[in-house]
Amino acid sequence: MNNHDRKMHLNLFLASMGHHEASWRYPDAPTEHLFNFTYYKELVKKAEQAKMDSIFLADRTSTSSKSVKYGALTPFEPTTLLSALAVVTEKIGLIGTVSTSFNEPYNVARRFSSLDFLSNGRAGWNIITSGTDSEAQNFNLDKIPDHALRYKRAKEFLDVSIKLWDSWEDDAVILNKESGIFADSRKVHEINHKGEFFKVRGPLNISSSPQKRPVLVQAGTSENGKEFAATYAEAIFTAQQTFADAKAFYNKVKERVKKNGRNPDQVKILPGICPIIGETKEEVIETESKLQELMNFDHSLMQLSNRIGTDLTSAKLDEPLPELPVIEEIQGHKSRTELIIELAQRENLTLKQLLIRLAGGRGHYTIVGTPQKIADELEYWFLNGAADGFNIMPQIMNPDFDLFIRLVIPELQKRGLFRTEYTGNTLREHYGLAIPDNQFMSI
Amino acid sequence: MNNHDRKMHLNLFLASMGHHEASWRYPDAPTEHLFNFTYYKELVKKAEQAKMDSIFLADRTSTSSKSVKYGALTPFEPTTLLSALAVVTEKIGLIGTVSTSFNEPYNVARRFSSLDFLSNGRAGWNIITSGTDSEAQNFNLDKIPDHALRYKRAKEFLDVSIKLWDSWEDDAVILNKESGIFADSRKVHEINHKGEFFKVRGPLNISSSPQKRPVLVQAGTSENGKEFAATYAEAIFTAQQTFADAKAFYNKVKERVKKNGRNPDQVKILPGICPIIGETKEEVIETESKLQELMNFDHSLMQLSNRIGTDLTSAKLDEPLPELPVIEEIQGHKSRTELIIELAQRENLTLKQLLIRLAGGRGHYTIVGTPQKIADELEYWFLNGAADGFNIMPQIMNPDFDLFIRLVIPELQKRGLFRTEYTGNTLREHYGLAIPDNQFMSI
Ligand SMILES: Cc1cc2nc3c(=O)[nH]c(=O)nc-3n(C[C@H](O)[C@H](O)[C@H](O)COP(=O)(O)O)c2cc1C
Ligand SMILES: Cc1cc2nc3c(=O)[nH]c(=O)nc-3n(C[C@H](O)[C@H](O)[C@H](O)COP(=O)(O)O)c2cc1C
Repeated sequence: MNNHDRKMHLNLFLASMGHHEASWRYPDAPTEHLFNFTYYKELVKKAEQAKMDSIFLADRTSTSSKSVKYGALTPFEPTTLLSALAVVTEKIGLIGTVSTSFNEPYNVARRFSSLDFLSNGRAGWNIITSGTDSEAQNFNLDKIPDHALRYKRAKEFLDVSIKLWDSWEDDAVILNKESGIFADSRKVHEINHKGEFFKVRGPLNISSSPQKRPVLVQAGTSENGKEFAATYAEAIFTAQQTFADAKAFYNKVKERVKKNGRNPDQVKILPGICPIIGETKEEVIETESKLQELMNFDHSLMQLSNRIGTDLTSAKLDEPLPELPVIEEIQGHKSRTELIIELAQRENLTLKQLLIRLAGGRGHYTIVGTPQKIADELEYWFLNGAADGFNIMPQIMNPDFDLFIRLVIPELQKRGLFRTEYTGNTLREHYGLAIPDNQFMSI
Repeated sequence: MNNHDRKMHLNLFLASMGHHEASWRYPDAPTEHLFNFTYYKELVKKAEQAKMDSIFLADRTSTSSKSVKYGALTPFEPTTLLSALAVVTEKIGLIGTVSTSFNEPYNVARRFSSLDFLSNGRAGWNIITSGTDSEAQNFNLDKIPDHALRYKRAKEFLDVSIKLWDSWEDDAVILNKESGIFADSRKVHEINHKGEFFKVRGPLNISSSPQKRPVLVQAGTSENGKEFAATYAEAIFTAQQTFADAKAFYNKVKERVKKNGRNPDQVKILPGICPIIGETKEEVIETESKLQELMNFDHSLMQLSNRIGTDLTSAKLDEPLPELPVIEEIQGHKSRTELIIELAQRENLTLKQLLIRLAGGRGHYTIVGTPQKIADELEYWFLNGAADGFNIMPQIMNPDFDLFIRLVIPELQKRGLFRTEYTGNTLREHYGLAIPDNQFMSI
């Protein structure tokens, strides 16, 4: 048994029945509860009992009649679902995705402050710029704005949001019933932001929340994405197919964070892993092949087309991935497209084989094995400079998330790699993140 | 004792410590819990135990360092707070305000569907167009758009939202694990809306919610507001100073609803009443004068200036209300401004007296008296064609909301005017509102 001061961070990426695209068809999946809050509540409470740092909800602002024909809808909008989860849990962090491309900073900053109050300091925001035309088409546009333009808007969106969170100094609220002074008006600031995309006066209409601002999370892995993350992100979700790639990414990002004058320890990097767990090898193989049988390749092809922004629905399954636009020209999900092309080439996969490889986690690292094997892998990545923790993405929630909690987490705890009790109350405390300085407060 | 088939609807307008502007300073007010979810939860649970139809949250998308100096902030953004309340209550309706001027319909329609799922069919949306420059200045504008333009946008916003709620037919979700069919794609529709303000493809990325759409509530009382309400609203909040005005408004709106080809019974009209309750007359007078003593007239003047869109902060308190722009020129909160001018003239008030009259409910009808007197008044308005129910706005939540529940509601129940048990589960059922037809479904 080993003891480490440095503990890994574990986030549960909540995805209704699981991350495998056929998970909703899995015999044990309680798919009839897809729209029941209680189902999500119980999953999150389990994650909290296991002392996980946080849960995470992804988001996408469109769907189509075709993609719901064979694919389960992810119901619930993240900020509403997280608000509900906030008041039935006590410790676990609550991270939700909201796009900077189709929202206004005043509304978003405010909803996250509201969530931070409701949860007593457990809010996190996964900042995305969105990447598909079909999303843009729900917001008065024909096409998704160019990648660089989206990140430019995202940067200004963040600058405005941070000013708004800072607009109430920590001790601005006086709340003196006798004198009748509610707030020290010298400590409540107009921000008077005027930029290329936004003009916002402020102050925010909600005072400084328990964490001052939500933990800022980011998942873009392209060049623009990495630069954005190095400037703003306090935690980074990323999809990495190999230890070598993960380590290279880890080093690059930490380096860039340092170059930007920030402390690299204050940016936690969490690669996604999509486990299929079994107590024996036979069990694992059975689960894996059962999931594979339940796949619908028409659906998988459409999902892939959507993800990489190129229509592949008439491509041949038994041939290699057709040639795609060069990466410089891709305006959608840049880094994920790159990862997928590389994976297909490295492993010399037919399109069908590629679809099977992607089904379990859309490009995230899939680990298939016994609890021991999974713990070994996490330990190796964690101790050898590839990760500060992991984004746990069970391919099927039931029973794999249970197995992860019952068998993998205790193993990690035994090895001294993961907490056995919460030592703090806020998401910042779980992740070991400081409260950032307020730009309006003199020190 | 009397028995009526027709029961009144009672909504609690939740406002932290109460609707009186000095309520946060009232000795019994638990103002230290202003930011604690538990405080709101307990109020709402009380309203539910009393079998009230719904609770309501107002909203405003700006504040200023001046207005929070003496005035308590209303924390929490409505859709997040209602989502949290949804999962700790079972029956009571949850109505929240969101502006059509600073949001996108796809986001708003989706959040209300999400809330409707979280609450199992108890969501309501109070549709506002916002009315102040200071709000516009948080959303890239210098001034609030003109009244008529705002209502034009609001109409299109609603058309889009309704199409989005209809975009999933009731039985579109198949969820057949064996066949692998999740949804009947013929029953999931693109809406392909192209209008003056919005271009939205659809479908919504959340299926048809328990109520199909939230109950649509509206509170504009101007000509444009009434026309909008007659087209879309299923419940109308309104501020009326006298029985005669309330009755005239009631008749006019129901008439207009009929002219628009809708059933007037399917539009519930709920004037606001701001009670101060005491078991004896002496008690009431004491509460009233205590509240008056706690007022800060600088603050009151600023609030009034903000509400009517004219700076009165240097006006003399002992003189009548200064001349204001003619009502046709007012682009902000038109109907409320009109009401305030009429009130000052009718009662021949000095500015100070006007501020005192407005302090308890900003222009809503204030009733001050014993439970008996309050029940009499509600009964009279209800039985004589001025109201389908009431928007209860206690001037101080503690203890007046308790008194309302403990003494007024039982009196109304004894008279057969209010339910003693919930007879349904959804907000539509409480209000007696049908589920509207889906424009994409053939009958
Ligand atoms: C764990 C994880 C979660 C993500 N969640 C979302 C999401 O919810 N919505 C979305 O549009 N993209 C999501 N992405 C995709 C990335 O954000 C994607 O890479 C990005 O949209 C494109 O930026 P890039 O070109 O900088 O990589 C996620 C990625 C990762 C690794
Ligand atoms: C009970 C009630 C609640 C209201 N809530 C809000 C609100 O939350 N936010 C807001 O800006 N206006 C609110 N209003 C103000 C009206 O919506 C106001 O009349 C409207 O903004 C201006 O439209 P009008 O000129 O058609 O009256 C409310 C009015 C009433 C009667």
